[in-house]
Amino acid sequence: MTDKIIRVNMTDLTSTIEDVPEAWAGHGGRGLTSTIVAAEVEPTCHPLGPKNKIVIAPGLLSGTVAANSGRLSIGGKSPLTGTIKEANAGGTGAQFMAKAGVKALIIEGMPEGDAWYSLAVTPEGVTISEETETLGKGNFEAIEILEKRLEGKQAIILTGPAGEMKMAAANVSVKDPNGGIRSSGRGGLGAVLGSKRVKFISINPKDGKVAIARPEDFKKANKEFAKALAAHPVTQALGQYGTNVLVNIINESGGLPTKNFTQGQFAGHDAISGETMADTITERGGKVKHNCHPGCVIQCSQVYNDAEGNKLTSGFEYESIWAMGADCCVDNLDHIAEADRIMDDLGIDSIETSVAMAVAMEAGVLEFGDGEEACRILREEIGKGTPLGRIIGNGTGSVGATFGITRVPTVKNQGIPAYDPRAIKGIGITYATSTQGADHTMGYTIATNILNVGGQVDPLTKEGQVELSRNLQIATAAIDSTGMCLFIAFAALDDEKCLPALIDLINARFDINLNGDDVVNLGKYILKTEREFNTRAGFTSVDDRLPEFFYNESLPPHNVVFDFTDKEIDSFWNF
Amino acid sequence: MTDKIIRVNMTDLTSTIEDVPEAWAGHGGRGLTSTIVAAEVEPTCHPLGPKNKIVIAPGLLSGTVAANSGRLSIGGKSPLTGTIKEANAGGTGAQFMAKAGVKALIIEGMPEGDAWYSLAVTPEGVTISEETETLGKGNFEAIEILEKRLEGKQAIILTGPAGEMKMAAANVSVKDPNGGIRSSGRGGLGAVLGSKRVKFISINPKDGKVAIARPEDFKKANKEFAKALAAHPVTQALGQYGTNVLVNIINESGGLPTKNFTQGQFAGHDAISGETMADTITERGGKVKHNCHPGCVIQCSQVYNDAEGNKLTSGFEYESIWAMGADCCVDNLDHIAEADRIMDDLGIDSIETSVAMAVAMEAGVLEFGDGEEACRILREEIGKGTPLGRIIGNGTGSVGATFGITRVPTVKNQGIPAYDPRAIKGIGITYATSTQGADHTMGYTIATNILNVGGQVDPLTKEGQVELSRNLQIATAAIDSTGMCLFIAFAALDDEKCLPALIDLINARFDINLNGDDVVNLGKYILKTEREFNTRAGFTSVDDRLPEFFYNESLPPHNVVFDFTDKEIDSFWNF
Repeated sequence: MTDKIIRVNMTDLTSTIEDVPEAWAGHGGRGLTSTIVAAEVEPTCHPLGPKNKIVIAPGLLSGTVAANSGRLSIGGKSPLTGTIKEANAGGTGAQFMAKAGVKALIIEGMPEGDAWYSLAVTPEGVTISEETETLGKGNFEAIEILEKRLEGKQAIILTGPAGEMKMAAANVSVKDPNGGIRSSGRGGLGAVLGSKRVKFISINPKDGKVAIARPEDFKKANKEFAKALAAHPVTQALGQYGTNVLVNIINESGGLPTKNFTQGQFAGHDAISGETMADTITERGGKVKHNCHPGCVIQCSQVYNDAEGNKLTSGFEYESIWAMGADCCVDNLDHIAEADRIMDDLGIDSIETSVAMAVAMEAGVLEFGDGEEACRILREEIGKGTPLGRIIGNGTGSVGATFGITRVPTVKNQGIPAYDPRAIKGIGITYATSTQGADHTMGYTIATNILNVGGQVDPLTKEGQVELSRNLQIATAAIDSTGMCLFIAFAALDDEKCLPALIDLINARFDINLNGDDVVNLGKYILKTEREFNTRAGFTSVDDRLPEFFYNESLPPHNVVFDFTDKEIDSFWNF
Repeated sequence: MTDKIIRVNMTDLTSTIEDVPEAWAGHGGRGLTSTIVAAEVEPTCHPLGPKNKIVIAPGLLSGTVAANSGRLSIGGKSPLTGTIKEANAGGTGAQFMAKAGVKALIIEGMPEGDAWYSLAVTPEGVTISEETETLGKGNFEAIEILEKRLEGKQAIILTGPAGEMKMAAANVSVKDPNGGIRSSGRGGLGAVLGSKRVKFISINPKDGKVAIARPEDFKKANKEFAKALAAHPVTQALGQYGTNVLVNIINESGGLPTKNFTQGQFAGHDAISGETMADTITERGGKVKHNCHPGCVIQCSQVYNDAEGNKLTSGFEYESIWAMGADCCVDNLDHIAEADRIMDDLGIDSIETSVAMAVAMEAGVLEFGDGEEACRILREEIGKGTPLGRIIGNGTGSVGATFGITRVPTVKNQGIPAYDPRAIKGIGITYATSTQGADHTMGYTIATNILNVGGQVDPLTKEGQVELSRNLQIATAAIDSTGMCLFIAFAALDDEKCLPALIDLINARFDINLNGDDVVNLGKYILKTEREFNTRAGFTSVDDRLPEFFYNESLPPHNVVFDFTDKEIDSFWNF
């Protein structure tokens, strides 16, 4: 099936099917969404106004049988950061979209009036319909309704109650094969989808298939690739304990941000650790591992049941557990799991919202450690869109500004995730320089700073960190274009056969001849395209800074501050 | 008495008396506060953190008998805009401070712990004391308490409940001679004073006097100056109707922003006009005119009583009446006056807060036109610091972001005041380019666009507007350095003897020889100093723009949009 671009104009409720412009042909995933957003969105536009666009694209390898290639990229201008934004998630969206021959779905404009709509994507194009039944419903109920309503197996991409209310931390949520939810979480693109009054997008690939130019080469490369993934010890640990294997590791390093970033270790770490979680899951008859999209060989997801053995949440990630756990001083895994479920149901970023909750705790809105009250606030305040709910639902910076708090862990107004940049300095460079606000996934130096993957760079000294973050940010931008899960990076960094196999997969899919340099150049191009958008939006190097308190308040137990000079940070961009 | 700088360090609760550095000697008012802030405050610091400073300075002529010279400048980095900020007000602060020989009071640092403090300034220096009695009290009660407590006539500068709660729209309030309140309103410097936990500053000049180098020349120049002021028709109208004379004039022009900037005329304009107000004041035994500081010959203030003849408010300005009136569609002057009183009592900017209220109305928080509910929200929500109160108390941008509204009239996050930039285009250039966010007082093109003062520039065409705004912004920066009320500008623009007389006053005061060019150069220096601070804080020309809707939504009745190109706006800085 020939790839196409589908463009939906929500102002006049029309759509067109377009050929793929030559300049976009080699791109997929983040590379494609960022290219399109940079080309078509006015960088100074209001993120919730008619001039912003939502661009949805599968990766270059999505829809094939390549292992772990099921990430779907969502792009646009972020209402949280004001920067360009790409957030990707698992689920079946990427694979079904690729099979339907849709290289990108571009949603632009904004309807008059109050009606909401759905978009039904098939290989033939898109149908726009008015939608009422799922409005105001939680994501789990909405998905249940839609699974009954939609014929056969379809992908569902939706905005939840938080997105309907245009909260700046709202997710674009993607159904996974088990009826669970995967979230394009960071940066509030769910609010952009909500501003266009698109409640959900269904994708029915019918009998569409992704064409492979050189099937035998593809098969061979995939075997090599999957083997490398399966063999790596970190990948294996992810399957055993989920990403939450990190709680004890990061706590041990002294870089686990605790009590709104005032301490680097959490007394309650054991209670919320991956080890405790795995035991609890086993005891209660949950699932220790499962995949978020077909073809995943890592299986870092799991099903966490409550004490009665009923499913509470899945896709229960380290960063979410850290945020509602250590950062809010909640040491009860059931409360954290309940909070996670509510946030999935509301369609709101669990990192942003929980980091915001910790700042609300510092402001005295609730007590540190009070997981029950946090759940009540999520359900009753954010869920109902009360003033307090909106303050928190608009993210960490919103809570800080509203309550006049100065210890507000954000970069470009996005909440800083689960690794303290004072004790793990490489990640601080990533937070500061990322084109998308503080985001660990943009250049995950933890791999090398803490996990000894791809070598070792001492987390507590400045040496080598800028280069480490630069190399990882470039590589990540390229990986985010393939549709691959970022967790392939561990094997790619350590196993010399992994990255060539990945490149072979792309070459075999399209019958082209990329080499390693091309991949690096792709990563550089993406970062520079994104940065150029931000510059035109008014961002300067002044925005590439951590908040003041990281420089002034030392973090126990190492009693370290973030001590990079502005010049050192800015040298990141010397490429 | 030799002028001195008093520096208060709130971190260790110490103070020093310093000689005036040569570079600061020729400066006063805004010129001095901006010079000091630019020299001493890190532009990227958190506005509510220990690195920000509050600088308070009387003008060059304050404390003398020069007519209308009683404006006090407050400077710092704004928590509302993130820019440098100067806001000035009448009252007795400037005159008493000058008489005490204090050229500037610099408050820096931030105390440990929760205690609050007062600063007692005399010619001998400053005494720092712990303060409890006035905490949490409304400004009127706090002033009553302090008038009893303080010996003799003293100036009082204070932060109200809004500043104690560090709301970004909080005023620095200044007592006037009649126990009323004058507000350094725009930009939230009251929150900065609150962040330093300074509840109030008293100034007792004892028998201090301002030295005049050439008394006879001074006397002669002052006579000329006061004569020019008294003779100008706009100045006279200000005495008769207050600034609220403008409601009918601006409504007639089609530039009276109504219903959150969706219309240019307000059906209820007669009910809230200066003419109606003057009649009502007379009927109820109020005062049609009085002065906000001794020596004012314009007397644009008034005392507005309620139906029972009790004083409701004073200093009841056009922009405040417009904001709670036309912009919120409230056509009941008593409700507007009550709102004005509550905002004075809370110490919160009546423009910012009311423009924010109109956006809250658009968000459905309350109905357009519901003045009673607006008063309840001011009293019960802002006054008590509820989540909704904090959202509104943090200003227009805060309300817009929290509720996901796109029609948010701000520049650099400061609410746009009472003149629509689509129908009165010159003021749009001022809003866009001002170093301090949207502020009509920074370059009041209404004088020439609407009032035919200083010539005539058609408000509806682009021609001549950039030059007009530039000339007025330069002149205003200079006038703001003298301690003069900005309303001297009408006479200065039309009466050829007025500006020379003002320069003669300065020359006679200091025995120097400024000429007209020096004054223009002073104005340019101030604007460039302020802009340089903003650039270092991360602002670019992208921030010198009006919100998108002014370009896209046409304003009835003229059905015009704001149509300057970016290049045209940026040409403002060609000097």
